[in-house]
Amino acid sequence: MNAEGADRARTLRLVVAYDGTAYCGWQTQPHAPTVQGILIRAARALDPKARLTGASRTDAGVHALGQVAALATTTTLTPTAVMRALNATIPADIRVLGATEAHPGFDARREATGKRYAYLVDCRPVAHPLLRRYAWHIPQRLDVGAMRQALVTLRGCHDFSAFCAAPGRAALPTCTIRATHVVRRRGRLGFVISADRFLHHMVRNIVGSTVAVGKGLHEPTWLGVVLRGGDRRLAAPTAPAHGLTLVRVLYPE
Amino acid sequence: MNAEGADRARTLRLVVAYDGTAYCGWQTQPHAPTVQGILIRAARALDPKARLTGASRTDAGVHALGQVAALATTTTLTPTAVMRALNATIPADIRVLGATEAHPGFDARREATGKRYAYLVDCRPVAHPLLRRYAWHIPQRLDVGAMRQALVTLRGCHDFSAFCAAPGRAALPTCTIRATHVVRRRGRLGFVISADRFLHHMVRNIVGSTVAVGKGLHEPTWLGVVLRGGDRRLAAPTAPAHGLTLVRVLYPE
Repeated sequence: MNAEGADRARTLRLVVAYDGTAYCGWQTQPHAPTVQGILIRAARALDPKARLTGASRTDAGVHALGQVAALATTTTLTPTAVMRALNATIPADIRVLGATEAHPGFDARREATGKRYAYLVDCRPVAHPLLRRYAWHIPQRLDVGAMRQALVTLRGCHDFSAFCAAPGRAALPTCTIRATHVVRRRGRLGFVISADRFLHHMVRNIVGSTVAVGKGLHEPTWLGVVLRGGDRRLAAPTAPAHGLTLVRVLYPE
Repeated sequence: MNAEGADRARTLRLVVAYDGTAYCGWQTQPHAPTVQGILIRAARALDPKARLTGASRTDAGVHALGQVAALATTTTLTPTAVMRALNATIPADIRVLGATEAHPGFDARREATGKRYAYLVDCRPVAHPLLRRYAWHIPQRLDVGAMRQALVTLRGCHDFSAFCAAPGRAALPTCTIRATHVVRRRGRLGFVISADRFLHHMVRNIVGSTVAVGKGLHEPTWLGVVLRGGDRRLAAPTAPAHGLTLVRVLYPE
């Protein structure tokens, strides 16, 4: 970038929602449709040197209500005009919900102080057709009390290697879970998990094991045993991606 | 049907939910995918002479949480086994949620004593990607109080020709609206309208004109003027199909 370009460089904070069904996750891949890939292509129509990074690398099939992305660009358009220009060219299953001026060099991932994920389970005997893309269908009654009790043991600061897809690969396996909620309503169950950071597949692994408790396969205390064991193989199977939604990314201000 | 077949004939009541996005409505058409068409094909794998009729002929793109269909069949399977056999062969965007034995000759349409429809509006500035198939996007604030007031004038027994797609075509243009509700929550608006019966496009025409009131284009009393005028051309444009959902069909018992 030349001196003039550097002068004009700015960083926008985009809030992005998407239906992840049609995408191979957030992160750009050479030959697969991804959310970041769609957005960066649209952004480069405004500024060929635009760069875009997201707070969370959501997996294939995972949805977002409030993903946050940093868009480094030299465009002189207002944030709202950038938002409209992007939304005018990207498909309807991805929407930029908001765009604001961030400090130059804003890093959506490193500056995040926390994230909140929700996981939806459809417990009715027959899978509901309007939820089929957004909920894991488990046609049996789950013990909500036992699941709540189990999740409480995960709150606080722990080594979460037991719930990491690639234990050992995470440089820092320590996370602080700030809140866990389980809500039941009309045959559906919603999990909400908030933490300062998450390891790879952590929410889906926690939900998978919590559901095993809800089915009565394990006592609520088992989740703490798995956590302390630090071994992914002790945990239950990973919950499927399509029930997971990134709800919000938190920042200091 | 021979005498033996008549002996064995029975009618099942199916409760059916569907995402109408991919279908040209409920009713079978020769060269287009329809919900009835999908279901009857699956039912005829069990009994080649099966007949299926629905309580409501929902339009292309309209969804259902509780459509009711009468399945006349000679199969000896239990209702639950029929439900499972159908769900095993139809696509995931259509689900039979329940099947029960009805009296022989049960007529899902003629015996219905009422129906309830919901209509969803997404009022946020940017259309939410997870609602794009299920809500009409109107990026402006609508006056909920005015819309509630307007809808109240439609309650009761009236000639609804003003809100009928083909006025004059309906043999009986009189319907009784039993309840109207407008609920606002987090940038979304939900309309619920219950009546003993509905004319063609009636809910979508009522919602279209109610939204015109909500936008401030007309006073709340205007809806009553349109109703009494009995002329479809006085009303506002029809609301799009994809925001509409058939919630429930009511029967005497």
